[in-house]
Amino acid sequence: MNFSYAEREKYLVPSEIRKYAQLSASTGCISFAGGSPAPETFPVQELGEATDRVLSKYGTKVLGYGDTEGLDKLKEQIVLRLKEGGVDNIAIEQILITNGSQQGLDFCGKLFLDQDDVVICEDPSYLGAINAFRVYGCRFVSVAMDDDGMIMEDLEKALKENPRVRFIYTIPDFHNPTARRMSQIRRKKLLELAYQYNIPIIEDNPYGDLYYDGRYEWPIKHYDRENAVIYMGTCSKTFCPGLRIGWIVASQEVIDRFAIIKQSADIHTSLLAQYQLAEYMESFNWIDHVEEIRNIYKEKRNIMMNAIRTYFPENIKYVYPQGGLFTWIDLPDYLNAEDILMEALNNGVAFVTGSPFYVNGGHHNYFRLSFGMMTGEVIEEGIKRLGDTLKLFCE
Amino acid sequence: MNFSYAEREKYLVPSEIRKYAQLSASTGCISFAGGSPAPETFPVQELGEATDRVLSKYGTKVLGYGDTEGLDKLKEQIVLRLKEGGVDNIAIEQILITNGSQQGLDFCGKLFLDQDDVVICEDPSYLGAINAFRVYGCRFVSVAMDDDGMIMEDLEKALKENPRVRFIYTIPDFHNPTARRMSQIRRKKLLELAYQYNIPIIEDNPYGDLYYDGRYEWPIKHYDRENAVIYMGTCSKTFCPGLRIGWIVASQEVIDRFAIIKQSADIHTSLLAQYQLAEYMESFNWIDHVEEIRNIYKEKRNIMMNAIRTYFPENIKYVYPQGGLFTWIDLPDYLNAEDILMEALNNGVAFVTGSPFYVNGGHHNYFRLSFGMMTGEVIEEGIKRLGDTLKLFCE
Repeated sequence: MNFSYAEREKYLVPSEIRKYAQLSASTGCISFAGGSPAPETFPVQELGEATDRVLSKYGTKVLGYGDTEGLDKLKEQIVLRLKEGGVDNIAIEQILITNGSQQGLDFCGKLFLDQDDVVICEDPSYLGAINAFRVYGCRFVSVAMDDDGMIMEDLEKALKENPRVRFIYTIPDFHNPTARRMSQIRRKKLLELAYQYNIPIIEDNPYGDLYYDGRYEWPIKHYDRENAVIYMGTCSKTFCPGLRIGWIVASQEVIDRFAIIKQSADIHTSLLAQYQLAEYMESFNWIDHVEEIRNIYKEKRNIMMNAIRTYFPENIKYVYPQGGLFTWIDLPDYLNAEDILMEALNNGVAFVTGSPFYVNGGHHNYFRLSFGMMTGEVIEEGIKRLGDTLKLFCE
Repeated sequence: MNFSYAEREKYLVPSEIRKYAQLSASTGCISFAGGSPAPETFPVQELGEATDRVLSKYGTKVLGYGDTEGLDKLKEQIVLRLKEGGVDNIAIEQILITNGSQQGLDFCGKLFLDQDDVVICEDPSYLGAINAFRVYGCRFVSVAMDDDGMIMEDLEKALKENPRVRFIYTIPDFHNPTARRMSQIRRKKLLELAYQYNIPIIEDNPYGDLYYDGRYEWPIKHYDRENAVIYMGTCSKTFCPGLRIGWIVASQEVIDRFAIIKQSADIHTSLLAQYQLAEYMESFNWIDHVEEIRNIYKEKRNIMMNAIRTYFPENIKYVYPQGGLFTWIDLPDYLNAEDILMEALNNGVAFVTGSPFYVNGGHHNYFRLSFGMMTGEVIEEGIKRLGDTLKLFCE
């Protein structure tokens, strides 16, 4: 039978990253394509211990239905983590536990976006967010970035020119895909503009704790005294992605609406998974744990960037990432990353081209490399192969 | 700050069941309100063993990102369960793992419903489904039921009169809230109508395995040779709800679309939870496990129905449930279940009134009782209290 679908069915586009990840997996090459965290950072043994403890302490309670808003025990731990990260005075009623922060992005679309409403985002931006919002039929107005993040003059112009803007979506820390970090001055300016135009900011912060040089920076939410910021946190990069636990932090008014959406969407997030994470956070030292993870990634980052310096042709520009999981490669204008990818796959190495991250396409001379998943040796070998490929195009 | 929300924000209504469940929890009374399964049926120890095994067998693999469609190992087990249940020849590509079947309902709304499209459902129907669909701005056309389920003449009339019908939503087995089972003749007729009008059937089947008299009945999907049925399964009643695992079974064309929706909605369902359930299904005897659960509920059902016969006034009618978790009470027309609930709460017992389950409200002389959560003694005491309350109104 052939069914009639809703209008929004035309906005259902498979993720390009997923396509590339599957492609590179099927060819068995070294893949810098996916954005997955390093498996060696997942605390398997400790999670096993935490599971035994919650099952013996709470028994059947951890396997029944739970509260839609999330487990209080876990929300109390998240309040502590937020406080350590400079987001103070958050009540547990201002938190909703989601299935990873991806679900929070979908909920933002559902709560805020009618057909032809406008989302402002960085140019480029996270593909998973673009796809989540696009389903609701919105339009995108993208704002150019420089090394300090979104350019505020351009943002102000976008706000002025687009009365149907419903929110500003940003990844201020170690942005996906460009690896850049928004400066503190711009964070404050962004918040000022949000207040002035009465527009919420969706602050997506999966990478803020993963800084390798310098220091941790306050999230935008730190400065927010008017509840303009809807903040998305996740344990996917600092614990593990497989449990699918994220959180939204916002005013209670907004959280109450998200809770009704969550009730219809899937009732609640896996209760056992919430108990497991809460138990882990209670019994192990979270600050030390994240410090260890930072050290693991810092070494991988160093290996990748040294290898790029060694093996890439000199006319290739790139972002030196001070944190996060990516670097962003900027080819000379006359080159096309799609062509290079085809040749790279022949040489046994893969990446994601930059164009899909731009809401209006184009920008064919960029690509993204992730250093999360592989060992140092594999990173070095992969970059060497990629360097050989690039030399075919650059010389 | 006060934000502008999407139009659909007006459709965000909190669940009435949830309100009553919270109300009865806060007063500490005996509650027949929620639809939760019996905690003593959750296999805590076996789940602990399964967890240890998957963590030691697969290590970090169970904590990383997984496939959006779900874990193949789990889908293979579900194919076996479907086969045992009379749904044969399902390929794993026709299955998508969801966060409980509630997520499948939300996805059906997202894929099929534009503003003012029509959903046909039973009158009354499951509140969680109504709320999930309502967010997409649909209208409801409800079809009356008798003891054999949805009345087919009324369904045909509804299909004829409403060109914008997008799907028929049904719970054929031990329906929530009425506890009725659709006859086999009507299942076949329903499918015939679906073919004739080219309209999909959403078959929601959380209770089909929980039959206490007579025998298991084939689901509608058993007869479906044209992929008209989008079938929703769940482990919430036969394993535990806290893991949030359900599955959609449909044509690959439909599953491919649901997978893109899932990708944006939350990437995938908790991978550890999927491994846990798959491991449990592989290592323990599922058929024996479900048989044990049936015996537990059958005893509770018997105790509740005997107590109703003993303590309720004679002019109260009710459905004798041959399966599932509920009975449905039909008061004389002149009585109002809301009034009785207020008095019942004073007497230390709670239930859910029937009216919220009707898409057009009304029907104030019905209420639902669940026998899942409590021990036999508590059921007996609760029904006695409720009988005393009813006598105040009936004599």
